[in-house]
Amino acid sequence: MSEAPIKTILTGDRPTGPLHLGHYVGSLKNRVQLQHQYRTFILVADMQALTDNADNPVKVRQNVTEVALDYLAVGLDPKVATFCIQSMLPELAELAMYYLNLVTVARLQRNPTVKEEFRRLQRAPADADEAQIRELEAQVPAGFLCYPVSQAADITAFKANLVPVGEDQRPMIEQTVEIVRSFNRTYGEVLVEPESLIPQIARLPGTDGQAKMGKSLGNAIYLSDPADVVAKKVKGMFTDPKHLRVEDPGTVEGNPVFTYLDAFDPDTEKVQGLKDHYRRGGLGDSVVKRRLAEVLEAFLGPIRKRREDYAKDPAEVMRLLKDGTDRARQVTASTLAQVRKAMHLDYWP
Amino acid sequence: MSEAPIKTILTGDRPTGPLHLGHYVGSLKNRVQLQHQYRTFILVADMQALTDNADNPVKVRQNVTEVALDYLAVGLDPKVATFCIQSMLPELAELAMYYLNLVTVARLQRNPTVKEEFRRLQRAPADADEAQIRELEAQVPAGFLCYPVSQAADITAFKANLVPVGEDQRPMIEQTVEIVRSFNRTYGEVLVEPESLIPQIARLPGTDGQAKMGKSLGNAIYLSDPADVVAKKVKGMFTDPKHLRVEDPGTVEGNPVFTYLDAFDPDTEKVQGLKDHYRRGGLGDSVVKRRLAEVLEAFLGPIRKRREDYAKDPAEVMRLLKDGTDRARQVTASTLAQVRKAMHLDYWP
Repeated sequence: MSEAPIKTILTGDRPTGPLHLGHYVGSLKNRVQLQHQYRTFILVADMQALTDNADNPVKVRQNVTEVALDYLAVGLDPKVATFCIQSMLPELAELAMYYLNLVTVARLQRNPTVKEEFRRLQRAPADADEAQIRELEAQVPAGFLCYPVSQAADITAFKANLVPVGEDQRPMIEQTVEIVRSFNRTYGEVLVEPESLIPQIARLPGTDGQAKMGKSLGNAIYLSDPADVVAKKVKGMFTDPKHLRVEDPGTVEGNPVFTYLDAFDPDTEKVQGLKDHYRRGGLGDSVVKRRLAEVLEAFLGPIRKRREDYAKDPAEVMRLLKDGTDRARQVTASTLAQVRKAMHLDYWP
Repeated sequence: MSEAPIKTILTGDRPTGPLHLGHYVGSLKNRVQLQHQYRTFILVADMQALTDNADNPVKVRQNVTEVALDYLAVGLDPKVATFCIQSMLPELAELAMYYLNLVTVARLQRNPTVKEEFRRLQRAPADADEAQIRELEAQVPAGFLCYPVSQAADITAFKANLVPVGEDQRPMIEQTVEIVRSFNRTYGEVLVEPESLIPQIARLPGTDGQAKMGKSLGNAIYLSDPADVVAKKVKGMFTDPKHLRVEDPGTVEGNPVFTYLDAFDPDTEKVQGLKDHYRRGGLGDSVVKRRLAEVLEAFLGPIRKRREDYAKDPAEVMRLLKDGTDRARQVTASTLAQVRKAMHLDYWP
């Protein structure tokens, strides 16, 4: 009996800000487990961050270190997974340039994820007609239109089989699959078709009850937040707006305080007890929030400690990123060599 | 008194077919002179050729050697000018990826050269309206839309001051200037603004009298054409359609046989004599064509000979390209390092 070969995962983040609890619940927690099951590459996507932060390179540069610290803090292990910096893998840019010839402009314009991001960037008025939207879309940088192609370069350079993404990112993986098929059909079987690995995890809402936690929304608790900041953010959290007096029955569903407890409190019985009490009435928001603050501190305390330890030695963090990038480069260089050979661009060794 | 620093020129061709007399008159002749006045880089633009030949990489690969042979045959000297292959300079792809963030999609769509090429590629019907043209334009590969950015990467990687181009390519240089200004404004003064160097040379018409000689038009005499093919092409050339009998007066203006004589016959007095005789009447087309065939053979013979000599040793041609590319890479790598430093992407040496 032959063993199935170990599968490869590519994952990563755009270094545009520190990571928060939403990132933890939505992907980091999952990655910490996956790193032991799969050959894992974690890409700090600085080039992609620049597609809509071209005028703020210092922010991108600083957040490369911040994101790496967040990784280390939550238990991603650079001896198990390979951390790497996108722009230090020049093969990715080269692959992207070749793939740009395999995708039409129309296909990129139709990409739902790009369309959604366009809307976010350009803030098109709700009553804009098709022509106006097109006009606005064309005002974004070309690099932004092309970023699904750059992402296809990332995924295929590592010959990733699996890409853990949220449901909303599924079209990006489909775009990559199309490019892989087009390449293999045109030049021969070199690239590997990836699959989305969509985790069965509820999305963590923001502290204000909005569906998504996000830096720009101002409703995030960061992995690097000090204890007093976390306590203050929890105190200000949105709960059930109809739960006015302690004795009133309250609603647990859609109440972010309970969603957070579900996500972070290891004592599920206790959480159930609090929920029952809250529903009956007689349990004040402040009591539930105090419990959540404790739970989050128990969770974030060790993370914060590890983060601070690593943060004392930024040179060591950069060394870890360099080691990972060197290892990653062996893979990306090998893929590029195969790609170039298939494209008859192997002029000399 | 300090001497002005020697200026840098970038020039080159897309390796999509062998070069012809139109290329010679329009650019190669000029380059042979310029190589002694300027620091000259000649780029065989295989990546750019792939933007609309993605499905035919073998054609591109073969024409890299053919174009290099044409260069050597006309007297471009690899010891004086630097020959290099675009795809073997990975810095160019990386620069292009960064520059894509500095140009809007709308700006690329408006580029007149791109618009012209779009029309050629898509063959839009003459009565197509704006919306239909947009729809057709979007069917081209994204790499094609982005190729002015790739060209900006080429020009700036060499810090070229001058780019010899035809009048129709002027918008491409303007696009590069815009990118240079945007980069320098955003990240600091690193890149050099290029200027177009538009030669004062009449364009050589096709053998059929069309304004432009081109492979796809089937009206070209190639530098590599054997003597009998040249003779046959000259015999079949378009002349003055109203010059029916030998004794009729003929028209010299717009008569490609005379345009070619002007371009290639060193004996200008003799050409003047033929023109006068033709205008008066009594000079048959076949006599003028016989003279042109002689003149072209005197010109093409030595070129063909040198081409054949080099063609006997393709490995040597590739070695010349590799030597040039190695030298070119020192320049492109140095520029990229400066670019990355300015963009705060200098993570480690």
